[in-house]
Amino acid sequence: MSAVLSVCSAAKAAAPAVARASTATKNAALRAMADALDGAHDAILAANADDIAAAREAGTPMAMIDRLTLTPERLTAIAEALRDLVALTDPVGEIVRGFTLPNGLQVRQVRVPMGVVAMVYEGRPNVTVDAAGLALKSGNACVLRGSSSAIRSNTALVQVLRGALESVGLPADAVCLIEDTSRESVKDLMTARGIVDLLIPRGGAGLIQSVVTQSQVPVIETGVGNCHVYVDRAADLDMATAITVNAKAQRPSVCNAAETLLVHADVAEAFLPQAAAALRDAGVELVGDDAAQQLAGAGAATEDDWDTEYLDLRMAVRVVGDIADAIEHIAKHGTLHTEAIVTEDRAAARRFVAEVDAAAVMVNASTRFTDGGEFGFGAEIGISTQKLHARGPMGLQELTTTKYIVEGDGQVRS
Amino acid sequence: MSAVLSVCSAAKAAAPAVARASTATKNAALRAMADALDGAHDAILAANADDIAAAREAGTPMAMIDRLTLTPERLTAIAEALRDLVALTDPVGEIVRGFTLPNGLQVRQVRVPMGVVAMVYEGRPNVTVDAAGLALKSGNACVLRGSSSAIRSNTALVQVLRGALESVGLPADAVCLIEDTSRESVKDLMTARGIVDLLIPRGGAGLIQSVVTQSQVPVIETGVGNCHVYVDRAADLDMATAITVNAKAQRPSVCNAAETLLVHADVAEAFLPQAAAALRDAGVELVGDDAAQQLAGAGAATEDDWDTEYLDLRMAVRVVGDIADAIEHIAKHGTLHTEAIVTEDRAAARRFVAEVDAAAVMVNASTRFTDGGEFGFGAEIGISTQKLHARGPMGLQELTTTKYIVEGDGQVRS
Repeated sequence: MSAVLSVCSAAKAAAPAVARASTATKNAALRAMADALDGAHDAILAANADDIAAAREAGTPMAMIDRLTLTPERLTAIAEALRDLVALTDPVGEIVRGFTLPNGLQVRQVRVPMGVVAMVYEGRPNVTVDAAGLALKSGNACVLRGSSSAIRSNTALVQVLRGALESVGLPADAVCLIEDTSRESVKDLMTARGIVDLLIPRGGAGLIQSVVTQSQVPVIETGVGNCHVYVDRAADLDMATAITVNAKAQRPSVCNAAETLLVHADVAEAFLPQAAAALRDAGVELVGDDAAQQLAGAGAATEDDWDTEYLDLRMAVRVVGDIADAIEHIAKHGTLHTEAIVTEDRAAARRFVAEVDAAAVMVNASTRFTDGGEFGFGAEIGISTQKLHARGPMGLQELTTTKYIVEGDGQVRS
Repeated sequence: MSAVLSVCSAAKAAAPAVARASTATKNAALRAMADALDGAHDAILAANADDIAAAREAGTPMAMIDRLTLTPERLTAIAEALRDLVALTDPVGEIVRGFTLPNGLQVRQVRVPMGVVAMVYEGRPNVTVDAAGLALKSGNACVLRGSSSAIRSNTALVQVLRGALESVGLPADAVCLIEDTSRESVKDLMTARGIVDLLIPRGGAGLIQSVVTQSQVPVIETGVGNCHVYVDRAADLDMATAITVNAKAQRPSVCNAAETLLVHADVAEAFLPQAAAALRDAGVELVGDDAAQQLAGAGAATEDDWDTEYLDLRMAVRVVGDIADAIEHIAKHGTLHTEAIVTEDRAAARRFVAEVDAAAVMVNASTRFTDGGEFGFGAEIGISTQKLHARGPMGLQELTTTKYIVEGDGQVRS
């Protein structure tokens, strides 16, 4: 058995104890984990400093080093996020449906943990703690496979979390770290059928695509968001400008930021100059089609631009003939994440909502609201862009499955 | 583009019209499909006769020829099953959750069709019509890939169904058949990412395993059922006998039939002779461990028997020390399908229900009840034995996903 499978098997052995743990025990564990993190700043920051030194030596870009960096403030926030999970409703045990059959059999569909949830992710060490907390509260054991750049930080964090688990009588193996950060270790995870119940990749498009297309373990695709804002003929243009700037520039590096602006031809002349000025004030560089080049002073867009998730202060702009063209553009170039329409026309809003295929469709709101925290789910484990199992922000409930419990008095089938 | 991808693309192009179709239109289509089948017995039975003749010539076993065979009575039943779908609640448009955020955004999670649902299956031509009906009622276009042995029957059936769709104004491509029954065509289906939204294999364990481990398209594992009946120390032994015989022998060829009988040592002497006699009366051959050989006159079981889904009048019998041993045996050998306990002891029932990991856990009821029809879901597309998305019998609801619709008045994120 490979080292990775040994780790997964240890998590699987721990899973029943986590699944059976009461909400009170799980909450006690979350508090103990938070307290333990608070008490271990020195060890964690020292390990993190080693990761940062290694990253500097390797010539890692500053933005990536920033993501990797822990500070006392960030550690405090990470611990606080664990405490926030305490207040969230425990999904385990919820009766999703229940009915009595004509023969008297009583059927309940009950929410139960998945078992072992594995996560492959990049960069940020806070994901290690977030994922462990969400998995625990939803009754799962977890297997974490972070990046090599964060291995020292992750090792220190997981050691602290495991100690906290044991302090409340839960098995340390409820949170397992894969220390092998080679590509081979991801392959081992992807073939751990019957041991790992769910594998979630979180990170760049390359990582996600390779896991989604190669995994033999059930997987949830997350995160890639080529999101659009469509400004309809009947839009309130000031609202449209505010939404466009917010969707693009409020935090350009995340998946629910908008990448392309589609503008109805009838309002392009009135809207684009004002929108372009506001976007430029926010530091956004524009590329676009001929009309956008004229009206917004945008550079020339290539066909590739419509398919690019910039994750940066850059936006593609296209003028479309009507709402049908906008919907068609989104169907061709969207990634089923979040799409927004700005309009005061009820029929246009209803049509956009009905015909656009995406995890979330916004009417007169920024794309940035597709977020577990904003939706009130508490922390999120990712945003699903697939249709199977979960779609959109995934919280605790999405880390569970169900079980039918059927109780009778000797019923047999005739 | 391969022929298979062309077919899938045609289904994808038809999918929006099916997704937007009202319940009334979809019900009219189901009735038209049923009526058209009723009116096309001659053509369908002639095509089926050709399939049967080819199967005979190829030396196909009688049981498989029986599954392949259509008769006027079977065709009438297949049409009736379509009419039964009319009465079922349309899952599309159901608001699963809804809430208003503190900033006034109104969020609704609405049930929507998957888009294109593909199915790979063996033998029975009735699956062609069942799958088409379920996909249609749940708002999906479907791509059907049956076996080569049934290709003439399936072609005739799908031609009739497509004509009926057009007669009510729906696109014929809402139901597409892949006529290429080579292995290559399944490979093409498994790589149709972005076109096929969900792929369901239904058939033998080999087919299911190959699709589940190789598909790049999201997939649901169905059907393999190595189901157990555990007769507890506190069981009503007459009830236990009736349940065991029903679970094993009422229809041994299906996935929810029991394969292994586990008996608590304290009641083995009282129970096994009576159970063995009843099982033998039902034509069941027994193999077992030493105790079962002594008490039930069973043949010797090998280690393989505990992992075998016989799908036949054969049952493995094991005497276990206690309920913990039974749960451990099931964890080691079960396939997460259906597991049953027979007991009058409340604590034993609660423990079994809590600790056994399966799609359905029965207390004092036959394993045969894990069935969409029995659960009142109407026809079922299969029984999921995975944890992602759907678990247990899958009806209309399981063929849908959700979409978040967020409506505001210009909200932006701060």
